[in-house]
Amino acid sequence: MRSVNLEKGKLELRQHQARPQPGSGESLIRVTQAGVCATDLALARGYMAFAGVPGHEFIGYAESGPFAGKRVVGEINLACGSCSTCAQSLPEHCPNRRVLGIAGQPGAFADYLLLPNENLHPVPDSVSDDAAVFTEPLAAAYEIPKLIHFRPGSRALVAGDGKLGLLCAQVLNEAGLEITVAGRHPERARLLPAAIRHSFGLLEADSPVLQPQFELAVEASGRPEVLARLIPGMLPRSRIVMKTTMERSHEIDLAPLVINEISLEGSRCGPFEVALAALAEGRIQVEGMIEARYPLAEAERAFAHAARPGSLKILLQMQD
Amino acid sequence: MRSVNLEKGKLELRQHQARPQPGSGESLIRVTQAGVCATDLALARGYMAFAGVPGHEFIGYAESGPFAGKRVVGEINLACGSCSTCAQSLPEHCPNRRVLGIAGQPGAFADYLLLPNENLHPVPDSVSDDAAVFTEPLAAAYEIPKLIHFRPGSRALVAGDGKLGLLCAQVLNEAGLEITVAGRHPERARLLPAAIRHSFGLLEADSPVLQPQFELAVEASGRPEVLARLIPGMLPRSRIVMKTTMERSHEIDLAPLVINEISLEGSRCGPFEVALAALAEGRIQVEGMIEARYPLAEAERAFAHAARPGSLKILLQMQD
Repeated sequence: MRSVNLEKGKLELRQHQARPQPGSGESLIRVTQAGVCATDLALARGYMAFAGVPGHEFIGYAESGPFAGKRVVGEINLACGSCSTCAQSLPEHCPNRRVLGIAGQPGAFADYLLLPNENLHPVPDSVSDDAAVFTEPLAAAYEIPKLIHFRPGSRALVAGDGKLGLLCAQVLNEAGLEITVAGRHPERARLLPAAIRHSFGLLEADSPVLQPQFELAVEASGRPEVLARLIPGMLPRSRIVMKTTMERSHEIDLAPLVINEISLEGSRCGPFEVALAALAEGRIQVEGMIEARYPLAEAERAFAHAARPGSLKILLQMQD
Repeated sequence: MRSVNLEKGKLELRQHQARPQPGSGESLIRVTQAGVCATDLALARGYMAFAGVPGHEFIGYAESGPFAGKRVVGEINLACGSCSTCAQSLPEHCPNRRVLGIAGQPGAFADYLLLPNENLHPVPDSVSDDAAVFTEPLAAAYEIPKLIHFRPGSRALVAGDGKLGLLCAQVLNEAGLEITVAGRHPERARLLPAAIRHSFGLLEADSPVLQPQFELAVEASGRPEVLARLIPGMLPRSRIVMKTTMERSHEIDLAPLVINEISLEGSRCGPFEVALAALAEGRIQVEGMIEARYPLAEAERAFAHAARPGSLKILLQMQD
């Protein structure tokens, strides 16, 4: 099989690799396509000193195990199952975990991958392969209403109109919130339901300081300076959910968080089954977010395209 | 009457001021003593471009109104009562609020002050004048168990062994948590119940990086660099409560908050009645925290003393 290896920032296609052999409780998955995520770009820039096969947003066919012959997607955290964190049902926080395509577990930019059976979810027939690659980021978006109970009609700000911002905005709109997306790409409004306000230039360096008006904000821009700019827009006792891992640290004035008793909450993974159900019922629109497709052999071009400012989802396809 | 006026960082005793006249729904309070708080020192350094009479931690006698003749303490936020924030029962966040000794309402470093009747709490007989001046900061500490429900036996870190840190540690110990106070003053251990571990040098520049072990942390040091140092000590899904308003912004790496789904929550005021009950029942020890007393006329010396690194509570006394 083929795999794309990343080491010291260089991507390299390796041919004629041996297929991985599933161990007990694992399934072999034949990957059909996989999305390039911002985390993959960060790994290519040196984040976490990554070396190996990246890729964690995928769809494929199980070739063995309980889902053999079925299309599957997979949760990315491989917990040890025996530590105190796992005992608290927080496998995604297991300190000994491996993470598909991110830490210690070869990822999806390859013809085949392995995952534990408990990580796999069969994909309903009504979910296309294109939609299914959004399961992982959509699940992360569905973590927000799981985490926070808000009054319907509350005003929420989604900072960022990239893929994650567009997904979070749709999920919160479905939950009954009144959403403003602050983005840099006016044309993205067409990818959102009409009820969502898309606002250009609300959180830029030269934007006027926001007035307090939001009960919830989701930071999905990945730019630390945006977090500082959205804080003045938050009402007392409001909540800010950070969905993107920022590589850079940034100077932030935390005094307004104390004075206005605002909370800032990190959030990462989310419920795959909820995301798959939403995709199956057509409640969340994702296909419009696919910008380009590249064969696996052109991973380098795919990464370069994905790294262009404002690009949407770039897919790698295993069948050339 | 006399009052201490602060303007452009200069304190000045003004004699022969007219006593303020209580309006409808207000009481005149004869102040007996008042504490110098870190916020007062910040105001003297120019925070909020303050001009007026500072002071907001006080005890005095009501000279008029429903509590006439009684000892009282008072909540410091004067809400407008007619805006949407007040309608949500969040008077301490009213955007039109005045704040005793901090914004728009002359404070307690004076022989008399005015407060709305609804801000006043009569002081139980068993609470000494010395204990009563701690009501406001102790109420702020009691906001933490009101805000957060935790499992008894959870490990909590209190960063800072100043007045607020010592109060927060006692409140959380009472709530059944296992407390470590990270401080700079080893001798402060004697001000804490034996069950609380007092650790010197846990969060200094040359301290080893903390290992994840705490489910709750309270930032009460007022030093932004301490916040950055305590984050590695936090377990997944843990919570950090920020109790002190930091004047400086600081560079913070927020990625661990997302990866470990940690929340950072600002918290300010708290329930006066809960604090007064704890003082009345002797559950919280405060008298040992009084370091010195100055007559009102020596406010400048009192401020200078309070500004010494590591000083505990400094009181201003109105009867010389």
